[in-house]
Amino acid sequence: MPFAELLLYAADRAQHVEEVIKPALEAGKWVLCDRFADATVVYQGAARGQAMEIIRTLNEKATSGIRPNLTFLLDCPEEVGLKRATARNSLESTTDQDRFEREGVVFHRKIRKAYLDLASRDRNRFVVIDATMPEERATEQILRHLKPYLERAREIQ
Amino acid sequence: MPFAELLLYAADRAQHVEEVIKPALEAGKWVLCDRFADATVVYQGAARGQAMEIIRTLNEKATSGIRPNLTFLLDCPEEVGLKRATARNSLESTTDQDRFEREGVVFHRKIRKAYLDLASRDRNRFVVIDATMPEERATEQILRHLKPYLERAREIQ
Repeated sequence: MPFAELLLYAADRAQHVEEVIKPALEAGKWVLCDRFADATVVYQGAARGQAMEIIRTLNEKATSGIRPNLTFLLDCPEEVGLKRATARNSLESTTDQDRFEREGVVFHRKIRKAYLDLASRDRNRFVVIDATMPEERATEQILRHLKPYLERAREIQ
Repeated sequence: MPFAELLLYAADRAQHVEEVIKPALEAGKWVLCDRFADATVVYQGAARGQAMEIIRTLNEKATSGIRPNLTFLLDCPEEVGLKRATARNSLESTTDQDRFEREGVVFHRKIRKAYLDLASRDRNRFVVIDATMPEERATEQILRHLKPYLERAREIQ
């Protein structure tokens, strides 16, 4: 049920922020997070059709308004992404797919479009990385964008 | 975490309404439900301090606006209620208390007050039953309030 799914993700996010992210930030640590509030906008909003207004309210409350300084969007065509997920699953010799991997190419096209829309509306925060290039080159690009943050951190120390 | 708790209850309610209550109502059945949206107002709102505005939004959406015709509030002083819960738990030879039973008398006083407040604001829907009287008499009182509904149902048939 899409609304219950949205609430479960919001509950998970709220607890994760409260128990892991907030204490880390307060201790001066850097937080790297694989998916955050944008994923709810994209998966539960754009793809599952839940109302953006309630998603925004839940995200705001669940994250206590904490926003990433920088968001890397590793972008590739949906067919490529699905092929990789399938390959990874067979590599891990499991036939288990998560509930989203089970969805078809149309679903993932919506997801990709919604992420790219978010990125185009918030160019200060988003960095879109072409995820079809070799892993080492993608890593290089990411590190290049992180450099100013690393330098600033070094200056502060 | 109170906000995550609120979201988990709302998710449970949404799925329960969608999968159990709605199909039953559509099939013309009567639905008897032990706790519903009021419990969220009282436990997560009045007692755990979550904002009433978001509780109302979540309840409205989770219940699809479905409201009981009649709500029986079995009311007794918090000390009596807690004693009964303790007795029931020892009878079932378990030391398990649920997360609310573990709370003290102050918490349950708030709960009782909040329920009575709701009842006084919505006298058409709420019937407050004095739960300190013997079970048979409480049953009688409840049946008396149900009588007009039963008669109407008989007329329709």
